[in-house]
Amino acid sequence: MDPLTYKQSGVDIEAAEAAIRRIGPLAKSTFRPEVLGEIGAFAGFVKVPAGYREPVLVSSTDGVGSKLKVAFLADRHDTVGIDLVAMGVNDVLVHGAEPLFFLDYMAVGKVVPEKIEAVVRGVAEGCRQAGCSLVGGETAELPDFYAPGEYDLAGFCVGVAERSRIIDGSTVTPGDRLIGLASSGLHSNGYSLARKVVFELMGLKVSDVLPGLGRTVADVLLTPTRIYVKPVLELLKAGPVRAMAHITGGGLTGNLPRVLPTGCKAVIERGAWTVPPIFTLIRETGKIAEEEMFRTFNMGIGLSLVVAREHADHCRALLTSLGETAWIIGEIQAGSRGVEYVGAR
Amino acid sequence: MDPLTYKQSGVDIEAAEAAIRRIGPLAKSTFRPEVLGEIGAFAGFVKVPAGYREPVLVSSTDGVGSKLKVAFLADRHDTVGIDLVAMGVNDVLVHGAEPLFFLDYMAVGKVVPEKIEAVVRGVAEGCRQAGCSLVGGETAELPDFYAPGEYDLAGFCVGVAERSRIIDGSTVTPGDRLIGLASSGLHSNGYSLARKVVFELMGLKVSDVLPGLGRTVADVLLTPTRIYVKPVLELLKAGPVRAMAHITGGGLTGNLPRVLPTGCKAVIERGAWTVPPIFTLIRETGKIAEEEMFRTFNMGIGLSLVVAREHADHCRALLTSLGETAWIIGEIQAGSRGVEYVGAR
Repeated sequence: MDPLTYKQSGVDIEAAEAAIRRIGPLAKSTFRPEVLGEIGAFAGFVKVPAGYREPVLVSSTDGVGSKLKVAFLADRHDTVGIDLVAMGVNDVLVHGAEPLFFLDYMAVGKVVPEKIEAVVRGVAEGCRQAGCSLVGGETAELPDFYAPGEYDLAGFCVGVAERSRIIDGSTVTPGDRLIGLASSGLHSNGYSLARKVVFELMGLKVSDVLPGLGRTVADVLLTPTRIYVKPVLELLKAGPVRAMAHITGGGLTGNLPRVLPTGCKAVIERGAWTVPPIFTLIRETGKIAEEEMFRTFNMGIGLSLVVAREHADHCRALLTSLGETAWIIGEIQAGSRGVEYVGAR
Repeated sequence: MDPLTYKQSGVDIEAAEAAIRRIGPLAKSTFRPEVLGEIGAFAGFVKVPAGYREPVLVSSTDGVGSKLKVAFLADRHDTVGIDLVAMGVNDVLVHGAEPLFFLDYMAVGKVVPEKIEAVVRGVAEGCRQAGCSLVGGETAELPDFYAPGEYDLAGFCVGVAERSRIIDGSTVTPGDRLIGLASSGLHSNGYSLARKVVFELMGLKVSDVLPGLGRTVADVLLTPTRIYVKPVLELLKAGPVRAMAHITGGGLTGNLPRVLPTGCKAVIERGAWTVPPIFTLIRETGKIAEEEMFRTFNMGIGLSLVVAREHADHCRALLTSLGETAWIIGEIQAGSRGVEYVGAR
């Protein structure tokens, strides 16, 4: 028997080191002044930003889920990192925190440095969009876990908020208005169902054009999740926001109640915004109930804000001026915590 | 065709909610006073601890790697969470930071609430051992990614250090002594190779007793990674430590140089400690070169500290009194950055 080496057991340390060399400059491109860049052998280092009286660290972790399967099919790996960052930074943002730093975990069947670089390029792009620093990451080569060419991603975001300015929904009152910010598409949720409809029921390939949409399956399903950090932080400087919800798995139905106090329900006007055609296509092809759609997909609303009635128009206008597509999608009413949909279907 | 639902696409939101209910009390058992426990709909909240003049956040991410495969074979899921926490907190610790909070990401083929609870029970146990708070987590159900019964784990740790007291190895000087702290076994690295030797070459099952060790494969290979946080933080109060390295993938050979300044090499005395029998068994059965062993496995040293020569005996005695098994395993000499092994094989 020949002597065994670690490489023979399926783990290639040299390929991993090649990948790490590619990642370094990408990470550096995201560094805020608080990052202490040159000292971290085993960890990343970030100073708590100045100017906070009682800084609170706000943290979240998430993955991209089965949207990754579309990236594998399309062999396109430079956008899912944006999704990964979006899932974390938007979660932190909705509590009024400024995203500060991010770390990623990538588990692969086999280290292919170019592919890892493409994923991390997306992560770095997302971090720049969110103004947060990519200060660490791990690439794990697990040949017995992942099919050839496949990987999984997890992301971790830490933001900072002034304790007295944390947004938690506790001040939400009947009469408040709900503002919805347009999503860029499916974002990173509902892909198990969406893939079933598009690939199984419709029998499409990633390179096929989606009927009525004029764009390929890959382009539509890989559109990166919108990152709302910069416009929303700008809005927070201008005025009070009482609650925000990141519309992820569970849709408006599942996510809005998470930030509503007891005795408040969200009443959403169906016709207040245009549901993008991809959702209509999925609903009609899969014969999916509207209720199921609203608790699986974002239906065109990626982030929702609750503001006092008298601030609603101004907030909407400000968000529009900052580049968002914003609608007043409903209001808060007295009732048991939940979401009610009204108006014509 | 029947209408499609999200559950039919392989994602079971109700099972996920059952899992979340089991996790809540486990997480709460880890909370430090800095945790603001009741506000986090989308994120976890932790105050920056009082008493730091210039607090620096020190962060790390890691997984457990293919040690998980042994947990699957043994159907034993309540210890890998300890490994997950250990990988993160020890990384943060070696820079002199106190671990503050932790988040976990768990991706499963199918949500089995009992299994998720077992994993998180381990994570919570690890967090208590490290004195850090489990403030968030994500369980992703990805039926098309993971084989039935399998899962992957990623963990994220944030610690805090006084900027002026960060340990980065920059003050290491020839003549300094290397202290090694005993590992509890393989910790969480080298399992691709270890599994190949134990399961393929030796043909053992997880329930078999390892020859000469008197313990089963499962017991030996699933021994949780040692968490060094409490004794090492105690040592740091007592005196200066110039560098520390967490001995993970890459072994002493790969990890010690990460914290050595230019012009310093670590000279390690082979006979200074007893290499545990599992490493000898793996080496002999796999006919693995000693060099390969030292850059794949921890070889019995889970954490290494560099201290001034005159403090070495005192530091070692203090670590011993705090429950660690500690040896002086070598010294720093002038030379090009790297590790040299001397003394009888």
